[in-house]
Amino acid sequence: MRVKVAIIGSGPSGLLLGQLLATAGIDTVIIDRASREHILGRVRAGVLEEGTVNLMKQAGVGARMEAEGLPHDGFSLAFDGRDHRIDLFGLTGGKRVMVYGQTELTRDLIEQRESDGRPTIYEACNVAPQGFDSARPFLTYDKDGVTHRIDCDFIAGCDGFHGASRKAVPEKAIRTFEKVYPFGWLGILADVPPVSEELVYANHPQGFALCSMRSQTRSRYYIQCALDEKVDDWSDARFWDELRRRLPTHHAEAMITGPSFEKSIAPLRSFVAEPMRFGRLFLVGDAAHIVPPTGAKGLNLAASDVHYLFTALLEHYQGRSNAGIDAYSAKALGRVWKAVRFSWWMTTMLHRFPEAGDFDQKIQEAELDYLTHSRAAETVLAENYVGLSY
Amino acid sequence: MRVKVAIIGSGPSGLLLGQLLATAGIDTVIIDRASREHILGRVRAGVLEEGTVNLMKQAGVGARMEAEGLPHDGFSLAFDGRDHRIDLFGLTGGKRVMVYGQTELTRDLIEQRESDGRPTIYEACNVAPQGFDSARPFLTYDKDGVTHRIDCDFIAGCDGFHGASRKAVPEKAIRTFEKVYPFGWLGILADVPPVSEELVYANHPQGFALCSMRSQTRSRYYIQCALDEKVDDWSDARFWDELRRRLPTHHAEAMITGPSFEKSIAPLRSFVAEPMRFGRLFLVGDAAHIVPPTGAKGLNLAASDVHYLFTALLEHYQGRSNAGIDAYSAKALGRVWKAVRFSWWMTTMLHRFPEAGDFDQKIQEAELDYLTHSRAAETVLAENYVGLSY
Repeated sequence: MRVKVAIIGSGPSGLLLGQLLATAGIDTVIIDRASREHILGRVRAGVLEEGTVNLMKQAGVGARMEAEGLPHDGFSLAFDGRDHRIDLFGLTGGKRVMVYGQTELTRDLIEQRESDGRPTIYEACNVAPQGFDSARPFLTYDKDGVTHRIDCDFIAGCDGFHGASRKAVPEKAIRTFEKVYPFGWLGILADVPPVSEELVYANHPQGFALCSMRSQTRSRYYIQCALDEKVDDWSDARFWDELRRRLPTHHAEAMITGPSFEKSIAPLRSFVAEPMRFGRLFLVGDAAHIVPPTGAKGLNLAASDVHYLFTALLEHYQGRSNAGIDAYSAKALGRVWKAVRFSWWMTTMLHRFPEAGDFDQKIQEAELDYLTHSRAAETVLAENYVGLSY
Repeated sequence: MRVKVAIIGSGPSGLLLGQLLATAGIDTVIIDRASREHILGRVRAGVLEEGTVNLMKQAGVGARMEAEGLPHDGFSLAFDGRDHRIDLFGLTGGKRVMVYGQTELTRDLIEQRESDGRPTIYEACNVAPQGFDSARPFLTYDKDGVTHRIDCDFIAGCDGFHGASRKAVPEKAIRTFEKVYPFGWLGILADVPPVSEELVYANHPQGFALCSMRSQTRSRYYIQCALDEKVDDWSDARFWDELRRRLPTHHAEAMITGPSFEKSIAPLRSFVAEPMRFGRLFLVGDAAHIVPPTGAKGLNLAASDVHYLFTALLEHYQGRSNAGIDAYSAKALGRVWKAVRFSWWMTTMLHRFPEAGDFDQKIQEAELDYLTHSRAAETVLAENYVGLSY
């Protein structure tokens, strides 16, 4: 088999890249070690920047998102018993975000790819990008007891933090940066109406909490927890009690509870690998960088990587230039580090750190006090939250 | 002896408070353990916020400052071999700072006090504020082998971090917050023209540097140094070499060097004591809080404390209300913590921390990159630098 671009990973970044390349007549294959059902069942983030929304439209797969997604013009910071609204729309000159679950976005992309008849290989074992430092890269993988080979011009590594792409790069060619946070997020999904029309990010002496949603009838709630907590120790009743405790009274009293149908604990981590290109292999999204979920930048950063890579490949195949390919890593990393910084900052401002002393705690309170009294500081938060320009 | 307000400490805050009270006919005595000559010889900060400038004018001692001070409309952030100007004036809607040495400001205040014939007692030993939890506070001190007593309505503790005022408060009545930074500033004064008309704050792999000035012919330069450095190990030649190394080439090449006439190492510390009022004793300025010098907030915070206290005492003596006195601590601390946060942030962004890992270093670079590409982020820096409103 031979294609122009072989894409490893059938998550949102691989699918979106494949779809954008399809609009330009550039053929791709997507290969994933997971099953179609597993991929469609994953529960992930759900706040899209305008840039991400626009890429979905550009790829021709924005219809359901536009019909069912919830545009949000602001969110709340809750602390010290009160709510402070960040007016994203007003502070950024008319930008907003779109609440649309990654699960839905993935489904839209998979269904479009299938109806277009473009190839995806699921349940591929031992996927191995090879020869990417030469002009003739190829992939090998095992399926049904047979080793297969795909020849290509380029390989896009969209296979996440634990994927094969980054691991295929010699250790000495890559530099990594990491920060592990001393807490996790315990999250649930429940079919109850969200407590507020907009997201609520809460800083409370007991720890961070986030009230988010997937739709008008499905809520996604999180509370900061210790890393050694066990999901089994958290009954729904205990979760709701703890969540309510961390919210201002008017939210706690208005909250509608119900049985959860998903409950899990996720650790928080910042991670960046540099560079993001190795010859004809590109790292995209989580394969190159991870951010803590505070600020919802993970999926959106993957989308901006896709934008830079799609633009570069288009330029190449239209015979114009390889400048975009040469610049891919630097361009993507410039935006990545700004989002990594923002996610780190928002995480630091809103969580309780077990090792924090009294001074650090007061600095956090002073920052929230300042932020909610300065239009410039609110604008800094808002312009990062809606997404810096590409 | 009996006065309305007894002021401990003849630094800028005590002198400015005395002068403002004098304009309202409220009599004071200032008492200091140091000599007049020692006080006039101290070398300190020199960047005044507009609020501080206005208080000097309100106190009737602004004439020489207005004639000789240097208004600055901006400053430079130097990093990665380049300069980025922060346009204070443009970003804040027309605010600026004034470069005027604390030594000069202190001299102006002392000379005015002397020409008005208001009492200051120098070289007073064992100054002790007493009875401040009653309606009849008083001070005692020893001088010339005799113990003296001053009765008063209120005591203003303007005697700095090591002064007697804070120490007179029972330990259980006070809560302190502290952060000690793992480096110091090695500073020199030299009679050479400043390398740049505006201040230059430099972030360099070898550490922070600051090019400041007292006048068109007197420069004040600093470099970050390890806490165990000895001044004697730093010849002028070594200092100039190290300073030049940390600056962009155009500054390094333009720098005029000469013999230093002051050279010292200062540690960097953040410190806040809460509350700032204990009955009829008020803590003002460094007696209650210390900030690292990055951002030049120390003297300016002392001035805003003076403003709140003067306003409160005026209200009291005009028979209007004691509300200002009751609110002094909370009002002052609200502004103090914002400035403590800003000074901590600017220090963190511009210095190299020995314990910082690669991730922290990249976050610092990302912050400078973002800051110099976002008008909102520049405005946050500028509005704090010129001083938040009282």
